[in-house]
Amino acid sequence: MDYRQLFKNITTKRSFLCIGLDPETEKLPSSLNSMKDPVFEFNRRIIDSTARYAVAYKPNIAFYEGNGVRGWSSLESTLKHIRQNYPDIFVIADAKRGDIGNTSKMYARAFFDNMDFDAVTVAPYMGEDSVTPFLSYHGKWVILLALTSNKGAENFQYHSEDGVKLFERVLSVSSKWGTINNMMYVVGATRAEMLGDIRKIVPDHFLLVPGVGAQGGSLEDVARYGLNSNCGLLVNSSRGIIFADSTEKFDKTAGNKARELQEEMEQHLFRAGII
Amino acid sequence: MDYRQLFKNITTKRSFLCIGLDPETEKLPSSLNSMKDPVFEFNRRIIDSTARYAVAYKPNIAFYEGNGVRGWSSLESTLKHIRQNYPDIFVIADAKRGDIGNTSKMYARAFFDNMDFDAVTVAPYMGEDSVTPFLSYHGKWVILLALTSNKGAENFQYHSEDGVKLFERVLSVSSKWGTINNMMYVVGATRAEMLGDIRKIVPDHFLLVPGVGAQGGSLEDVARYGLNSNCGLLVNSSRGIIFADSTEKFDKTAGNKARELQEEMEQHLFRAGII
Repeated sequence: MDYRQLFKNITTKRSFLCIGLDPETEKLPSSLNSMKDPVFEFNRRIIDSTARYAVAYKPNIAFYEGNGVRGWSSLESTLKHIRQNYPDIFVIADAKRGDIGNTSKMYARAFFDNMDFDAVTVAPYMGEDSVTPFLSYHGKWVILLALTSNKGAENFQYHSEDGVKLFERVLSVSSKWGTINNMMYVVGATRAEMLGDIRKIVPDHFLLVPGVGAQGGSLEDVARYGLNSNCGLLVNSSRGIIFADSTEKFDKTAGNKARELQEEMEQHLFRAGII
Repeated sequence: MDYRQLFKNITTKRSFLCIGLDPETEKLPSSLNSMKDPVFEFNRRIIDSTARYAVAYKPNIAFYEGNGVRGWSSLESTLKHIRQNYPDIFVIADAKRGDIGNTSKMYARAFFDNMDFDAVTVAPYMGEDSVTPFLSYHGKWVILLALTSNKGAENFQYHSEDGVKLFERVLSVSSKWGTINNMMYVVGATRAEMLGDIRKIVPDHFLLVPGVGAQGGSLEDVARYGLNSNCGLLVNSSRGIIFADSTEKFDKTAGNKARELQEEMEQHLFRAGII
């Protein structure tokens, strides 16, 4: 999927919502326990009740890897379900991989060849040759960590040379490795006002903003500072949607929560003159 | 395994060799193709012929993940084989993970609970709360990326604030998160002379040094600058051992290559007065 197609999906659905599929085993409704693959069953019902409001899903790979071989199988089933039923959805493997060239090539193969994800999140620490193997796939994307929303972000991401913070350097240096058609950036929503500064460095790139909802970011601030003329935002919510209700009606509630966010996003897109 | 036990294994085997298990499918001897699990069969024969010369194995997780569910199963079988036959071996999941707290917790569960690795390599970009979940497991280790051996290391790892380079800051800040009993650092061997400077920041920690062998580092330089009174080094070789011979005798050749490195290491340990 390219930039243009993603933007088209956003304007059609009037939404830039990404839903994080982080199915913590302990939090799944007990009614699913008797199923053959409770994680997949949970995801399937979440997806079926939210897909009309979302343009992207983002399975967090740790929550599958944590279940070993069985988890990997749940992930493959989830991706297959999305591909077969919702072909216009952008699917992100939130994996935060990154290694030397021949190793990143294997990770790219895992997520793009074997599993047909649209994008992978990648950590920047090891530099250009750890990222470019992911960029050699036509129509696939790298979503590079720039500024994250956790407390530990302060440890290294603000390390500053001649006034240029590390995350700013990551943005400016890496933006030359790819194009707006195959690179996005992770920018934490707990610092929405910084989106304005970030937009000066990468005005045209899509930004994936986690941390709206359970992690406390404000969608209004994110939209104010982050929207560009092609939307340029995917805003993620995970727990605030998928674990909003622990009863058997979890999917219905998830659908309602997703619709609320979509409606709010529609207003922001309208106000910004994008739709 | 703690620092003391690891050091004991090093002095017993007179070796600080770590062998990287990076079984690229395309490079496996064709004779293995008919096996049920060629990757495991390759690893098993490599391990059985090299275990007497090595103190650690380091499966690179990408090369298993790249094969999907089947690859994950090969990894589990490999680890089981080591645990059942060579209980004193230190086994590292070279995964370069790192994410927000609740996600790193899931990765820790994957590698320490489900699979019983001794250590996981972790990327530092997201800071303290992305690392500490791995440190809560008794007897388990984080091996944090500091200075890597690839070209892209130059992009960000040398970013310098008040004369302190990013990788130096990673060393000094993170060394307070754990102890010498649960943290090591990845330090690339292509810059062996820098090990001297690194030893000033972390004199007592173990360092995992990749890049000796196929990637061109010199073991002599690494030993000169990196050894401390408790050895303090694990030096990794992957392709130089496991793919030294593409014929049916690959395991015998791997054993010979591992023995050569062990003998060289024995000399360095002897010269340094460690054995």
